[in-house]
Amino acid sequence: MLVERTLGFSLIGRDFSKAHAPRHRRGGSKIREKNALSTPRLFHVGVPGFVQSRAFRCIWLLEEIGVDDFEVVMVTPGQPYGPQMRSYGVRHSRKLPTLELDGQEISESGVICQVLAERYAEHKSLLGRPEERLELLQWIAMAETCITFRIPLLPTLMRPDQDLDSIRTGAVEPMRAVFRDNIERFEEHFDERGSDYLLASGFSAADTMCGWSLDTLHSWGVMDLSAGDSPKTLAYLERLRARPAFLEAEKYVNVAPGRYSRGCAPLDD
Amino acid sequence: MLVERTLGFSLIGRDFSKAHAPRHRRGGSKIREKNALSTPRLFHVGVPGFVQSRAFRCIWLLEEIGVDDFEVVMVTPGQPYGPQMRSYGVRHSRKLPTLELDGQEISESGVICQVLAERYAEHKSLLGRPEERLELLQWIAMAETCITFRIPLLPTLMRPDQDLDSIRTGAVEPMRAVFRDNIERFEEHFDERGSDYLLASGFSAADTMCGWSLDTLHSWGVMDLSAGDSPKTLAYLERLRARPAFLEAEKYVNVAPGRYSRGCAPLDD
Repeated sequence: MLVERTLGFSLIGRDFSKAHAPRHRRGGSKIREKNALSTPRLFHVGVPGFVQSRAFRCIWLLEEIGVDDFEVVMVTPGQPYGPQMRSYGVRHSRKLPTLELDGQEISESGVICQVLAERYAEHKSLLGRPEERLELLQWIAMAETCITFRIPLLPTLMRPDQDLDSIRTGAVEPMRAVFRDNIERFEEHFDERGSDYLLASGFSAADTMCGWSLDTLHSWGVMDLSAGDSPKTLAYLERLRARPAFLEAEKYVNVAPGRYSRGCAPLDD
Repeated sequence: MLVERTLGFSLIGRDFSKAHAPRHRRGGSKIREKNALSTPRLFHVGVPGFVQSRAFRCIWLLEEIGVDDFEVVMVTPGQPYGPQMRSYGVRHSRKLPTLELDGQEISESGVICQVLAERYAEHKSLLGRPEERLELLQWIAMAETCITFRIPLLPTLMRPDQDLDSIRTGAVEPMRAVFRDNIERFEEHFDERGSDYLLASGFSAADTMCGWSLDTLHSWGVMDLSAGDSPKTLAYLERLRARPAFLEAEKYVNVAPGRYSRGCAPLDD
């Protein structure tokens, strides 16, 4: 069984080989028909031209694998996500992305990408080779830590009585250096490896994870890859952005709140 | 074999049952003697009374498991970590924490905690029950995302021409609300579960991960658990801080740069 083979124990505490009735039947899904899995439903939000939630990483991953049967729910930006998700049956989560899968609610895009990649690994593996597991996990973590405000800078930034000068010299400028250093770590990696993607074995969940981070922060100039010091990382980002699955995943940011199936096709409620 | 049983494939691409000569032999290590594993070496830094690096999470975990044979290298704060680690034989990493294990360099505290917890799971499991795996992974991710600056607030904060008012109203105040919301998520969890620790099955790597985040940000008042709205999360933090393994892990912040074995005992170079 797929999940048992990959992980050594059941994915979310029960056996996926026991088929569950999918909520929304669609024709032509080779992956779904084969494994009789329920439909993954992802909650997502975006502001066109500015930002897309981390659910982008997960939709991109599903597109790369070629999963035909999934659902994306776009919520309204700027309004609390919890109540909006409640209206779609979510019980606990109030954070994006949220994945609904077999009655479970799963948060954290890194976990969601792993869960989905493991679930559909028999169709197309985006988990790298077994010996790359630790590297994959480090990139998944790095996708967040490379955009995390350096923790010792937080007290200066968050002080109630802070002034502009101390914020600039005590938090913002040091953080710019951290972002430059993080770019350098990517650049060194591509220099040493000469690979097109983060793992030597090819495109993986490491790329959907770090790709969103680089794409988002580069588009704002916060991690500016076009300054000339990181040509390989810039080429990597351009390679990612040109992938058909990336372009498919980008479509959702432009649609109205509501439910969509693959290809950004509206679902009637 | 321990690792095979837990993961379904070898932990870092080779079989741990093939023993490697430990670099620093010490007496009395039941765990090491049993499995003939090499000595884990963690790189760490801290400023007394202010902050300890995320390596704290990993040392704390080793102390909870009761691993007798490990090494901590304290580097000098405020100086680049890469060159300091090079002088101890680290080849690539320039980020803390770094774990050296069987000739591999592993970054990201969440990955290091998983690797160490898996390695010593036969002695004492801090990975929760198999059916808690997804919950564990979500807490490990949450430990970072709960302290990550909300991404859409970054452009305002990082703009070169920013003024104090826009930073306050466009980044700092919204981020304070995010931190309050993150505290509320912990509080809701303890309200619903009534458990002493994050996983229902008891203390786990989820606690060493989130514990460092809460301990650090609470001590600065950035995530203030004593404001009255989160009594259960405050009690949780106090429970964590009272654990003997937490207190053992705290000792390293007070010592001079150099190599130490368990119990913060200096190692001669």
